[in-house]
Amino acid sequence: MNQIDNLSINSIRILSADAIQKANSGHPGLPLGCAAIGYEVWANQMNHNPANPGWANRDRFVLSGGHGSMLLYSLLHLFGYGGLSKEDLMNFRQLGSRTPGHPEFGHTVGVEATTGPLGAGMAMAVGMAMAEAHLESVFNKDDYPVVDHFTYVLGGDGCMMEGISSEAFSLAGTLGLSKLIVLYDSNRISIEGSTDIAFCENVEERMRAFGFQTITVENGNDTGAIGMAIEAAKRDTARPSFITIKTQIGYGCPAKQGKASAHGEPLGAENVKALRETLEWPYEEPFYVPDEVYKHFAAIAEEKAETEAAWNVMFAAYCEEYPEMEELWNRYYDVHAAEVLDQDGQFWKRQEKAEATRSISGSVINYLKDVMPNLFGGSADLAPSNKTAMSGAGDFSKEDRSGRNLHFGVRELAMAAIGNGIMLHGGLRAYVSTFFVFSDYCKPMARLSALMGTPLTYVFTHDSIGVGEDGPTHEPVEQMAALRAMPNFHVFRPCDATETQAAWYSAVTSEHTPTALVLTRQNLEPMAGSSREALKGGYIIDDCDGTPDTILIATGSEVALAVKAKEALAAEGMNVRVVSMPCTDLFEEQSAEYKESVLPKTVRRRVAVEALSGFGWERYTGLDGKTVTMDGFGASGPAPQLFEKFGFTVENVVAAVKGIQIN
Amino acid sequence: MNQIDNLSINSIRILSADAIQKANSGHPGLPLGCAAIGYEVWANQMNHNPANPGWANRDRFVLSGGHGSMLLYSLLHLFGYGGLSKEDLMNFRQLGSRTPGHPEFGHTVGVEATTGPLGAGMAMAVGMAMAEAHLESVFNKDDYPVVDHFTYVLGGDGCMMEGISSEAFSLAGTLGLSKLIVLYDSNRISIEGSTDIAFCENVEERMRAFGFQTITVENGNDTGAIGMAIEAAKRDTARPSFITIKTQIGYGCPAKQGKASAHGEPLGAENVKALRETLEWPYEEPFYVPDEVYKHFAAIAEEKAETEAAWNVMFAAYCEEYPEMEELWNRYYDVHAAEVLDQDGQFWKRQEKAEATRSISGSVINYLKDVMPNLFGGSADLAPSNKTAMSGAGDFSKEDRSGRNLHFGVRELAMAAIGNGIMLHGGLRAYVSTFFVFSDYCKPMARLSALMGTPLTYVFTHDSIGVGEDGPTHEPVEQMAALRAMPNFHVFRPCDATETQAAWYSAVTSEHTPTALVLTRQNLEPMAGSSREALKGGYIIDDCDGTPDTILIATGSEVALAVKAKEALAAEGMNVRVVSMPCTDLFEEQSAEYKESVLPKTVRRRVAVEALSGFGWERYTGLDGKTVTMDGFGASGPAPQLFEKFGFTVENVVAAVKGIQIN
Repeated sequence: MNQIDNLSINSIRILSADAIQKANSGHPGLPLGCAAIGYEVWANQMNHNPANPGWANRDRFVLSGGHGSMLLYSLLHLFGYGGLSKEDLMNFRQLGSRTPGHPEFGHTVGVEATTGPLGAGMAMAVGMAMAEAHLESVFNKDDYPVVDHFTYVLGGDGCMMEGISSEAFSLAGTLGLSKLIVLYDSNRISIEGSTDIAFCENVEERMRAFGFQTITVENGNDTGAIGMAIEAAKRDTARPSFITIKTQIGYGCPAKQGKASAHGEPLGAENVKALRETLEWPYEEPFYVPDEVYKHFAAIAEEKAETEAAWNVMFAAYCEEYPEMEELWNRYYDVHAAEVLDQDGQFWKRQEKAEATRSISGSVINYLKDVMPNLFGGSADLAPSNKTAMSGAGDFSKEDRSGRNLHFGVRELAMAAIGNGIMLHGGLRAYVSTFFVFSDYCKPMARLSALMGTPLTYVFTHDSIGVGEDGPTHEPVEQMAALRAMPNFHVFRPCDATETQAAWYSAVTSEHTPTALVLTRQNLEPMAGSSREALKGGYIIDDCDGTPDTILIATGSEVALAVKAKEALAAEGMNVRVVSMPCTDLFEEQSAEYKESVLPKTVRRRVAVEALSGFGWERYTGLDGKTVTMDGFGASGPAPQLFEKFGFTVENVVAAVKGIQIN
Repeated sequence: MNQIDNLSINSIRILSADAIQKANSGHPGLPLGCAAIGYEVWANQMNHNPANPGWANRDRFVLSGGHGSMLLYSLLHLFGYGGLSKEDLMNFRQLGSRTPGHPEFGHTVGVEATTGPLGAGMAMAVGMAMAEAHLESVFNKDDYPVVDHFTYVLGGDGCMMEGISSEAFSLAGTLGLSKLIVLYDSNRISIEGSTDIAFCENVEERMRAFGFQTITVENGNDTGAIGMAIEAAKRDTARPSFITIKTQIGYGCPAKQGKASAHGEPLGAENVKALRETLEWPYEEPFYVPDEVYKHFAAIAEEKAETEAAWNVMFAAYCEEYPEMEELWNRYYDVHAAEVLDQDGQFWKRQEKAEATRSISGSVINYLKDVMPNLFGGSADLAPSNKTAMSGAGDFSKEDRSGRNLHFGVRELAMAAIGNGIMLHGGLRAYVSTFFVFSDYCKPMARLSALMGTPLTYVFTHDSIGVGEDGPTHEPVEQMAALRAMPNFHVFRPCDATETQAAWYSAVTSEHTPTALVLTRQNLEPMAGSSREALKGGYIIDDCDGTPDTILIATGSEVALAVKAKEALAAEGMNVRVVSMPCTDLFEEQSAEYKESVLPKTVRRRVAVEALSGFGWERYTGLDGKTVTMDGFGASGPAPQLFEKFGFTVENVVAAVKGIQIN
């Protein structure tokens, strides 16, 4: 290795160790062990332009081992990404800094994905590679490979232990995503000690079983060997590649290298000193990087900028030769494109007949597929039940990249992460789908959607005991509360076609918030009062004259029940308002005035009706009101009997109203 | 195959098809395709005694593909388990029947685990095999193999696609669980069609990579070949075995076999007729099974009973020779054993110094390990952070089965399922652990704990923004609401040592409810008023004189804050009560009188303080009260700064109280 390469790599190590030491918190093991990998990839392998982090055709790099964030921050700093300064590094892990403990998408320029939960980055990278492959098929023309980039992901033993990586890589192998390059930081150390205690498998054999090319680099500091492995990965146009790179955790720190203690705590002042000695780093000053290193990175950055410049030239010629493709490109990359639906009468057409909201959603998807050519999605092997197939849009497969229907297999967790990866890539609008009860499996990645602000759409069908005979393992109860409690996440449970349209409209026009649609298996009648007011989250769907003495609040299949209960109560002279509340999250975002107009504070006789856990409904029913909800798990039996058994009857709602004692 | 075997297998097929047809709901594909497998395993391979389903040393059988429940119900009926009658089969999937859509543990005699969520059974079987291996090491003596049984699990392509099976099998291979026999129903069909669309991997190669012996049976109806494969599995004493059995989904039904349509809907009357013809089944009467078949199964059952009888003789001799082992056995298998702690002053010793509740929990675990020799647990590679290691108790490994510390690796989902499997096996009391934010990964299996009523203990540490520098990916917010909303699940967030002791006491004495302990990373001071009243879920920890005008409700680290806020308010002349609410679930189970005594309905000035999502707190604060909780995700920074930034200060709590307008 020549001297400047060596200095550059050690700069990454020193910056990382110093930042972690100064913060007195962080994970030095990965940055020290993987500095050479990071350098080789970013300096010699990746096409990227530090001056334009948003270049559409850049190679993507995901740090799946997000705890090693200082590796990424050091690289971003040295390459000059977004002006990430030495001071930013000095503020590592401090409140309000641009260098939080784990990399956060949207927070630090150049970070492609929020990582930390292990394995998530692996699966998001698979999503990015899927997006790339599909966009290639849409946009590339002879001599104009306008979409043509690799996706790199770096992760360690923990990422490989997590089931999500098996799910995602099995799919990646099936799909032959040859532009996916997985860099496996193999140090055989985890927090509890040697990986021998829990992880004796032959990882490479597993990856070959999934359909990957596997390559091994014996020395993680050998940039030449790493580079050759990556070149081999690039040459394989049929299979994704998995490069095992044998590293030493905490490399360069004599007291810690190769030990679990290198993973997650600062080295200590003495060990940082020893690191400097081992690396023959002559500068004592913390965070000091020699000028020649900065110049070296700046020179590389300039070369990299030329790669984009060349692409820009090609793209301009492409646009000139194919103006219709330029238009299409702009449509794909315009996050506001779906807003035209606002004025689209066909989209908002009132439905006359009873239908399951999952099935209505299926019709909406098939309408959207033409309005939004970049709609790209599917189900975890439940498309016929979830009604998520776009008819005539083809299947995305190894043989046909133009297909827009995704077959995730029975892999809900990876599916959600892949959906995030597709959205992070840009250019496509993704949706994913499974039964609502299995949203539990998606949850860790739905949280990342919310945290990153990637507006992925989740289609969750079979939304209650309406599931019927499949019984309690398939009947959601607490899932709704779990999603409603999550920040920056919109959950819709529409009561009919109009509200389902509104939910989809909200989902595909959302810029920074993911949306879940929670849909019935069973048919629902169109509701007379349903309207686009659903976009406010909650609205009066059936009012009384004058001030109500009672308010019934319901969602989804229970709105019709609430209206029937209102009629029964009205017959007895009560003044009852019915509020449809398809999305509590959006209702909370409304003005205090609007909320008061829907739910006047003085009206305390309130009953919420929803065939799910009542947890959380007291926000609207208070200490005086009641809930007609699920107290326990469901049961196996015909759905109408279940609704009866669990108290979703007019009689029971009426009794709940009458049982309220207002002091 | 001789005639009676053939008739028996076809009886399973006919009963399954008829039951699904009568219910007009269900999954015929698996029972038809796997009938011969089920028969061979239950009739010729497994040691079990239909007359005593609770026999401790029975072989276990888990149907991981739970949708194929009619296979299991047919076997249970034919073997006479728990009197499961023909009428029960006729009531398949009907409300209140003993034959719900998916097998439910505790509901139908002979069902070893609730299954339905794919892959879960695979991981639970790994847990059962771990329990067996450990109990072997504890109890077996020369000539007395009192614990010596196999665990069988049958699942299909869906189970193998789910990441949980990779997680669990990688661990099973590492641990060399040679008594685990996985039967892979390989029909290459999933709901969306051929598995080629999403699942082209070489499953056997993956399983070999995990350390399994792999065996393939080409014809799923060839009981001889299946039997030979199982014999080979039994002979391998170093590795678990994975038997790929090539089956045809919906076998015997000409219009459906080998097709996705065979999976999840009734065959239809005409196809059931065609099935009878193909199978050369001469009886038209639905549910009819010839007497000779019943006699055949009865004869087998009688033989099986003799196996247990022989074991009983051995066990009696063992108890005579080793009376101390008999005593130990009874202690292991006594679910009430931990109740002695009630009177154990040492266990309940008051703590004087400030300490993190995770660390207090670590001390409790190390106390319990002596009181409860059957305590068996560990962490998903976070033991040093979770403080879950039992010192001196050894590591459970391939080489040493006597170890009680489990190393799950970074596999939270499989960990929870394995914990369930250990508990289902009987004899052991399991706990599992990870960061609270990653309870999201455990959730699908925590739900199964709740549904089955397996009192597994979850130790979730790093319970809030107190995580600090690791930032929002590692800071729980909505996880608490998600768990509280789940039926039959107790979540404790203790405020100090006393409440942590109470939480553990509640956990290890619980018979049918799983418990989660949610514990701090940071030190907490002992609270003056904390007491065993915590077992009521919520109690007055610091009261005022006379009727309060204000109630502050808090949990965990925020109880101390609430007490300080109370003091500030008292100084201004307000009458404030502080309620510690470590477990809302248990509080809800108290009498109306008790709840009213703690939270009098007339006191409407109420503020809940918890550094987690406020979702759900309105149950106690109502329309008038306020919550000092987390509205969004956390941030990366030193924990004290985060508590300040997000409003967990005396000033802010005081302001919340004062801001309340009571009409």
